[in-house]
Amino acid sequence: MSIIEKLQWRAAIKSFDKTKKLTTQQLNDLLTAVRLSPSGAGVQPYKIIVVENPEVREKLRDAAFGQAQLTHSSQVIIFAAETNVDTAFIAKYIDLIAKTREIGREHLAGFEQSISNMVGNMTEEQRITWAAKQAYIALGVLAAAAADLGIDACPMEGFQPGKFDEILGLNKLGLTSVVIAAVGFRSDEDVYSKQAKVRRPVEELFIHI
Amino acid sequence: MSIIEKLQWRAAIKSFDKTKKLTTQQLNDLLTAVRLSPSGAGVQPYKIIVVENPEVREKLRDAAFGQAQLTHSSQVIIFAAETNVDTAFIAKYIDLIAKTREIGREHLAGFEQSISNMVGNMTEEQRITWAAKQAYIALGVLAAAAADLGIDACPMEGFQPGKFDEILGLNKLGLTSVVIAAVGFRSDEDVYSKQAKVRRPVEELFIHI
Repeated sequence: MSIIEKLQWRAAIKSFDKTKKLTTQQLNDLLTAVRLSPSGAGVQPYKIIVVENPEVREKLRDAAFGQAQLTHSSQVIIFAAETNVDTAFIAKYIDLIAKTREIGREHLAGFEQSISNMVGNMTEEQRITWAAKQAYIALGVLAAAAADLGIDACPMEGFQPGKFDEILGLNKLGLTSVVIAAVGFRSDEDVYSKQAKVRRPVEELFIHI
Repeated sequence: MSIIEKLQWRAAIKSFDKTKKLTTQQLNDLLTAVRLSPSGAGVQPYKIIVVENPEVREKLRDAAFGQAQLTHSSQVIIFAAETNVDTAFIAKYIDLIAKTREIGREHLAGFEQSISNMVGNMTEEQRITWAAKQAYIALGVLAAAAADLGIDACPMEGFQPGKFDEILGLNKLGLTSVVIAAVGFRSDEDVYSKQAKVRRPVEELFIHI
């Protein structure tokens, strides 16, 4: 199947088959894809929380309007934005580049300054929104990669971030949940994946100049 | 190549080969992937502007700090958020579902109400931020699909949205630019794609619960 056919196959699955779990390899591949996702200036201002624990997932379900995907999927993946993208955070990133590419840190001073200026010019709220947007790119990559790997994923915004943060202890880690995805395999009973996919018509969605 | 190998191959290309253009089929495939991207409640609160016109791209380049990707790539793709996601916009989306799935509109009243409540509870700024986040999912899908198709893409936040809106006449269409991507093929001179990819270490990026 081409990537187009795979994206046609994918659907926001509401009804997962509780008995089907991702293999270790499948989960690794999916998380590797997410790790390879692009992000603004390469900063990756987020962490990814992978929840399998059934008790924790019950609590998350209560904080997600009781939606069954939280407990019936194989894993719940929470994209959490870094709330403290400050000069120390950027410096650590620059260290990582220097180490990975084996280049002197002094060659990265200009790049470090430009990122520091970018985040320094934002309010705290703007910084978290910026970090959240980067997490949404990673969510897009997860959706496409899952489809490619034949794994079902249901991206979800319908949850209470404050409660998720509390259940997962995210605030003390300098994180806040921004969007989630349940991953696993569709049940035969899933309704929406059997219906025609609804997308804005080509002539309405695209403008060519 | 697996999707992982393809994502390893991809890089935010700074130096495009001016002589290499996407075929009509490649551009169609890429845009089809973007169109199939998931979005919050399926609303797709954005439009995608595909710019090939050289004069327009020169202007965009001036509004993007002179970055060469704007003029040397095959196309520049602008993700623009809808600024008026109101009840009329939602009603049109519900009409589209009813038509596509051949179901009576009355069966969708609850869904329509829930989306209307969601966007109705947001301030105008929050609505545009929400729409922008959905566009970032589409950007993630574009990045993954481009890699899969062997097309280079450079997602970019470094541009002046206000100037882009003016050059492209977006405001009068109820749109505002939020993020862009240059697409095409890397030149042999591209530096960054030859360097090791920098990503947060697995043990730092992921938390397993």
